[in-house]
Amino acid sequence: MEKARVGVIGAGRIGKIHIHNLCYRIPGVEVVGIAEAEAAVPATQEWAKQFGITNVVSDPAALIEDPTIDAIIICSPTDTHADLIIQSAAAGKAIFCEKPIANDLEKTKQALAAVRKAGVKLQLGFNRRFDPNFRRLRELVEQSEVGDIHLIRITSRDPEPPPVEYVKVSGGIFMDMTIHDFDMARYLAQSEVTEVYASGSVLIDEGIGKAGDFDTAVSVLRFASGAMAIIDNSREAAYGYDQRVEVFGSKGGAMAYNKTPTTVELSNAAGVFSDKPLYFFLERYMDSFVQELQDFVDCLRNDSEPPVTGEDGLQSLLIAIAATKSAHENRIVPVSEVDN
Amino acid sequence: MEKARVGVIGAGRIGKIHIHNLCYRIPGVEVVGIAEAEAAVPATQEWAKQFGITNVVSDPAALIEDPTIDAIIICSPTDTHADLIIQSAAAGKAIFCEKPIANDLEKTKQALAAVRKAGVKLQLGFNRRFDPNFRRLRELVEQSEVGDIHLIRITSRDPEPPPVEYVKVSGGIFMDMTIHDFDMARYLAQSEVTEVYASGSVLIDEGIGKAGDFDTAVSVLRFASGAMAIIDNSREAAYGYDQRVEVFGSKGGAMAYNKTPTTVELSNAAGVFSDKPLYFFLERYMDSFVQELQDFVDCLRNDSEPPVTGEDGLQSLLIAIAATKSAHENRIVPVSEVDN
Amino acid sequence: MEKARVGVIGAGRIGKIHIHNLCYRIPGVEVVGIAEAEAAVPATQEWAKQFGITNVVSDPAALIEDPTIDAIIICSPTDTHADLIIQSAAAGKAIFCEKPIANDLEKTKQALAAVRKAGVKLQLGFNRRFDPNFRRLRELVEQSEVGDIHLIRITSRDPEPPPVEYVKVSGGIFMDMTIHDFDMARYLAQSEVTEVYASGSVLIDEGIGKAGDFDTAVSVLRFASGAMAIIDNSREAAYGYDQRVEVFGSKGGAMAYNKTPTTVELSNAAGVFSDKPLYFFLERYMDSFVQELQDFVDCLRNDSEPPVTGEDGLQSLLIAIAATKSAHENRIVPVSEVDN
Amino acid sequence: MEKARVGVIGAGRIGKIHIHNLCYRIPGVEVVGIAEAEAAVPATQEWAKQFGITNVVSDPAALIEDPTIDAIIICSPTDTHADLIIQSAAAGKAIFCEKPIANDLEKTKQALAAVRKAGVKLQLGFNRRFDPNFRRLRELVEQSEVGDIHLIRITSRDPEPPPVEYVKVSGGIFMDMTIHDFDMARYLAQSEVTEVYASGSVLIDEGIGKAGDFDTAVSVLRFASGAMAIIDNSREAAYGYDQRVEVFGSKGGAMAYNKTPTTVELSNAAGVFSDKPLYFFLERYMDSFVQELQDFVDCLRNDSEPPVTGEDGLQSLLIAIAATKSAHENRIVPVSEVDN
Repeated sequence: MEKARVGVIGAGRIGKIHIHNLCYRIPGVEVVGIAEAEAAVPATQEWAKQFGITNVVSDPAALIEDPTIDAIIICSPTDTHADLIIQSAAAGKAIFCEKPIANDLEKTKQALAAVRKAGVKLQLGFNRRFDPNFRRLRELVEQSEVGDIHLIRITSRDPEPPPVEYVKVSGGIFMDMTIHDFDMARYLAQSEVTEVYASGSVLIDEGIGKAGDFDTAVSVLRFASGAMAIIDNSREAAYGYDQRVEVFGSKGGAMAYNKTPTTVELSNAAGVFSDKPLYFFLERYMDSFVQELQDFVDCLRNDSEPPVTGEDGLQSLLIAIAATKSAHENRIVPVSEVDN
Repeated sequence: MEKARVGVIGAGRIGKIHIHNLCYRIPGVEVVGIAEAEAAVPATQEWAKQFGITNVVSDPAALIEDPTIDAIIICSPTDTHADLIIQSAAAGKAIFCEKPIANDLEKTKQALAAVRKAGVKLQLGFNRRFDPNFRRLRELVEQSEVGDIHLIRITSRDPEPPPVEYVKVSGGIFMDMTIHDFDMARYLAQSEVTEVYASGSVLIDEGIGKAGDFDTAVSVLRFASGAMAIIDNSREAAYGYDQRVEVFGSKGGAMAYNKTPTTVELSNAAGVFSDKPLYFFLERYMDSFVQELQDFVDCLRNDSEPPVTGEDGLQSLLIAIAATKSAHENRIVPVSEVDN
Repeated sequence: MEKARVGVIGAGRIGKIHIHNLCYRIPGVEVVGIAEAEAAVPATQEWAKQFGITNVVSDPAALIEDPTIDAIIICSPTDTHADLIIQSAAAGKAIFCEKPIANDLEKTKQALAAVRKAGVKLQLGFNRRFDPNFRRLRELVEQSEVGDIHLIRITSRDPEPPPVEYVKVSGGIFMDMTIHDFDMARYLAQSEVTEVYASGSVLIDEGIGKAGDFDTAVSVLRFASGAMAIIDNSREAAYGYDQRVEVFGSKGGAMAYNKTPTTVELSNAAGVFSDKPLYFFLERYMDSFVQELQDFVDCLRNDSEPPVTGEDGLQSLLIAIAATKSAHENRIVPVSEVDN
Repeated sequence: MEKARVGVIGAGRIGKIHIHNLCYRIPGVEVVGIAEAEAAVPATQEWAKQFGITNVVSDPAALIEDPTIDAIIICSPTDTHADLIIQSAAAGKAIFCEKPIANDLEKTKQALAAVRKAGVKLQLGFNRRFDPNFRRLRELVEQSEVGDIHLIRITSRDPEPPPVEYVKVSGGIFMDMTIHDFDMARYLAQSEVTEVYASGSVLIDEGIGKAGDFDTAVSVLRFASGAMAIIDNSREAAYGYDQRVEVFGSKGGAMAYNKTPTTVELSNAAGVFSDKPLYFFLERYMDSFVQELQDFVDCLRNDSEPPVTGEDGLQSLLIAIAATKSAHENRIVPVSEVDN
């Protein structure tokens, strides 16, 4: 394959980032079309000019059915993901889809079945796996530098809570936020989750509580291996985006600390001051957004397996559903209970 | 009071450390007698000479009944603590007792009742509260630098597992090891624990499993405030004694990292190397052993309240019992369930 | 100005980096032509296709005289810089020139005179000023967070020595390597250098010594303000590119530490291991290469002053000449002595 | 030797610290007498009671001539050191003497000659060699972890300037402050200093300038090996006592960072805050004060060589004299020039 030819569905915040990266930072790929909602087409056409992209359409099918397109990048709202996957698979397209496939288990399984049946590639947008720090953790695990995994600790805190409107449709903190951490735990554990305990509190924003969700949460995952992962989440860390991961095993421990804008330290009569973490996911994970699409493009061109599969999406969804149940019903929930 | 006069019961490892500190590093106190088991009296006499202590007896009552003694320091085996507390209280003595009062709830309550009735001071040996790092965390909490507490994270890992024989009588990992972390969580949370989830695995030493205990454990505490604490324990960290504590709240987070022998960093072609944590509790917490007795002596001399009370011992015991139950019965256990 | 139109002279390593950045990462600019040595034209044409640049010439004058071009980016060998500056200035072009203007004082002054006479903009490629860490240091100085400057400490060590052939024509360690540090010291000191002490040794590569140069060097600069800067250089640090800068003043100190590929720390029985610094200047300073040209393009479009001037180039050259003299003649050299 | 018996001359600040350490923290030694100036005898007697020391005299000879005393610890004012060494040596006593022997070269040499002639042990109080961090640096050097030494960097800054009255009699910044750093450089370099460049400024306290001294200084030492050491000093660092040392060589670099009261880090909306260094030498170097005397006592009991010799004192004095000359005469000074 000379250059992979892709169509992007959805040019919202993350879609725009992907298009920019595909045009400017990722060799071997060409964006040949963008689909956006009817109303947003003119603005998107204007915006796309800088990349020399002129093919902006309102109907995703125009891209999905285009025989010159190799792959579809799905960045539209979550509730459209499963159907777009099914359509793209039917059209024989490789698919990159933002996580999650769906908040609904049935829909997710239908989409995966369609992908399987069509025999197309599907890569899910668990971008954090592509962060250099967490990749290093994974390498250390694979190189057995940590030994058998005993404990995983993940801290994942946002700098500010989302609007309550978002919380109402997101499926809740475990579905929209912790799901990244569930995937990270699976990425590092080398074993599958069997049981989930989760507990939540409303300590930051009463509106979130009224919407039936939590803003502070703790999750414990038990793996088949006997290892355990502990995850703590907050919707609001005063000091910014806190993303730390630790793997501990029979031979030692490896920790990924936060990234900061600079390495500068100021010492004065009041103390020693250093930088807060990078503010939020765009700053913190920009490298990983490039890398995940780079890897997807490489898969297309080398006809190799995507590094994050639909099965990964399904497993994290199962854990998120179990966690949500655990926190709301105040009991330990086996993953097998929610997967039927 | 010129100098406080104390008698020490038990001159094993921790007893010897306390005697050394009382003689050499803590002003305002005099060790006027030591009680040890009959067989150990001669060796203890020999050892005590360096401090000019000649009064070494085999019967603790000889110290407890001595009218010239102000306070009794109890460092004998755990199963003797409660009775010695009761006798010392009856004799009107102030008491410093190594933790725990007892592994048994009934005995613990009897001892506390005796103390209350006699109106004597009782300080428990939760030495970690006196570690300068954790004290600083507490100060930051008290000064409201962290705001309302939302999450507490405690990592507590030993450098090597204890002998299986010890495990068999210790009451298990939550009773002998995590109990320190439960106290630390209470020390920082400014709220009481209402509910406990704990989970354990045997990943290090099968002998520990055969003895009915775990060597790797995770505990989650829910506080009345809605805050949560997550604690992870391992009986064996390849890199040494891992003792990190973090408090996270509405205004920010404060973390205490490990202490190391030096600040030296070596950079070479293989990477950047720095020190492992101080090996174990004697190295890590020596300052806190001095400070807790310093504070106890100050209480005696100023007639003020001890900084760690019998109630603190009771609460941590209740949490430890609930955690043990939770891990063995695989369910969430309210603290109220075990306190009846 | 819609988009600035630039021509690039020299498409060697740094030239290619600049062209890539101008095309992909810097908005508001268009590369309309490249000049390269006759022999390299075909390969450069091939390489330039990816950016859609077709205008590759062997005669720089073709770009300099092109009336549609706003600015010339000079990335050709050092001995061509001064003449190209003079020609570009005569043609009324704005100029970005890699450092140094020349190793020769007379030529440097002639070039600066031509720029002054023509009234064109000239920005020198002291890219480190644009590194986010050192920018932060400068901000802290400007915001008076450090107070009056008393001491500056710069460590600048390369991961491997250059070929001896390079050393023979580079002007020596103070002219080709320390000159960056001299500029950094000036960038932070808010005062001009009056006196230089430098001392060198040959401890790494005898060939460098035979070529009349040093591979290990120390420089001390005295500023008019009474502040002093100390710089240490090595041509070979086993652990990679060591680039640390510290400013110390009446109100405190600020330090910029090295940048590393990840924040990961591995703890095991052998110690605690973390990343070496990023390997060399391309990895370490890539952001600064983008930023310096971004700023240059902004200057063109806003008709503002370049952030690094020809005068900055001249001052650092004077210091480098004085340092070279000092090290070879083993005496303290006033800057005024070399500026005549 | 059962226990070494020592007499201490001078019970000012450092004398009191040594006596406390000898009595409480160093086994194998007994303080059998203290000499203090006539006027201070009663207060010293009162103070010494806590250690059970009753023999407090005003005439040092009473200790020096006491046949039951093995060693003399000299903590009296600098101008008395040389004579007390000479008298103690004549009496066959081992000697521990606070640095320096004298600010005067002739006196120093006379004292060393007396020591040599008498064949007694003499240890100088360069306590920093006994700091665990710098000991580790030395071990890394000895174990060849750093390879051949190329560069040494020492930062040594006090938290506040001394009284001008002290500066007037101290011999100046290089004699009273940097001399510790000169010794540290020699301790690590494995080569002797041949040449010194030093430069000073008055940036903190004009009174210091009027007294003919500097408050900010830079020194560069050249060693016979070709290695170089750079030292920067300030009489006032706003953030406290800054004591960092780095050794760089053919195989890598090793750095000792500052020590802090705690490891606690507070992150909030304003940034990440950590502890300032320990305030001053008493806090920072207390361990080293214990260790140097522990080693001295071990020498006495094992009849081994002291770890810091009179020759070490002489060499650092020579460097300090050369540095003072260099800074005042603004020229490079060979050590051989001042040693005649």
